Amino acid sequence: MVEFDDTFRRQLRELFVWRRDVRRFRSDPLPDGAMDRLIETACLSPSVGLSQPWRFVIVDDAVRRRAVIDDFRACNADALSCYSGERAARYATLKLSGLEQASGHLAVFADKTSDIGHGLGRATMPETTEYSVVSAITAMWLAARAEGIGLGWVSILNPDRVHAILDVPDPWKFIAYLCIGYPETECDRPELEQAKWEHRRGANEFTLRR
Amino acid sequence: MVEFDDTFRRQLRELFVWRRDVRRFRSDPLPDGAMDRLIETACLSPSVGLSQPWRFVIVDDAVRRRAVIDDFRACNADALSCYSGERAARYATLKLSGLEQASGHLAVFADKTSDIGHGLGRATMPETTEYSVVSAITAMWLAARAEGIGLGWVSILNPDRVHAILDVPDPWKFIAYLCIGYPETECDRPELEQAKWEHRRGANEFTLRR
Repeated sequence: MVEFDDTFRRQLRELFVWRRDVRRFRSDPLPDGAMDRLIETACLSPSVGLSQPWRFVIVDDAVRRRAVIDDFRACNADALSCYSGERAARYATLKLSGLEQASGHLAVFADKTSDIGHGLGRATMPETTEYSVVSAITAMWLAARAEGIGLGWVSILNPDRVHAILDVPDPWKFIAYLCIGYPETECDRPELEQAKWEHRRGANEFTLRR
Repeated sequence: MVEFDDTFRRQLRELFVWRRDVRRFRSDPLPDGAMDRLIETACLSPSVGLSQPWRFVIVDDAVRRRAVIDDFRACNADALSCYSGERAARYATLKLSGLEQASGHLAVFADKTSDIGHGLGRATMPETTEYSVVSAITAMWLAARAEGIGLGWVSILNPDRVHAILDVPDPWKFIAYLCIGYPETECDRPELEQAKWEHRRGANEFTLRR
């Protein structure tokens, strides 16, 4: 049995505080094996009924990477067109992905049809399959930051298009496209907060008692 | 800027290894403020477009708790009826929630309609709202284990029923019902693996290259 002390808990809190969605990467590659090690850590995560529905796709092929970047650009242009006035001007200045610079590209899917776990826990809430994959991504994100590696989650993508670009099995559901590499800078504040797009609220704004 | 050393990284890995979905709780209550502290930690999590869509409901009322337990029992009986033979016999022996014993009950919802974050990053993948909430739950889970507090995620519930029992705003989507308290035991293996319901696979089974 393992116990954790105050020093660890203080550092763990620092890890939460300093974990960022990274969009600005240095060009140097990750060390050999780093991506596989992060995936292995992710697989220690909880999954509904031990279903282990996470499916990882390491994207190295330059043509596929370029196609994903093109899809991001198209989706981001569409997103910009939904804002107007000052808000649109501000959106246009935001850097929302590090796809061009990140040395590592990792797509993550959920296999909704796998029989691993024999369906346990998924009958009334089948979406817990996707949630298990998100939990694994979160673990990977924290483990990466502890190694000084940055991760950025790109959601401004067309899921069907990414699925086709990566040519993965039909039943897999696209969850996330991750940019992974060394960050240009570290910060304890989200980039969207620094850019005054949105600010963080206190937990008390989000808590009810019943 | 904060850096982490090998000692911390080793302990962080231990935290991932020893984080369990807890279903067997001691009866002693959490210290004052522990639940609020865990929620505050969860709010340090990433959220799409800084939307902070997490909504926490601390459930203390005995009548509401009992209604949730009754719903779990009904859903679990339905789930059992979907198995047959030896698999059904084994399902019947599994302990799948600590709702009766856990001192803390916490329901977690996603507010899909909040304008916090101005919709950024959610246009093509609106489900990233729910995913942000799952990320927050994962952070809370890890922080809890670091304090020796166990968390169990109950998904064998009817979301509409839980929504009605807790009388929360209409647009909130039910994500998770969490049992929180001190675990009876600690283990580095999932209970479903110990019970030979399912075993864990290696990361290589889940990784493709493209």
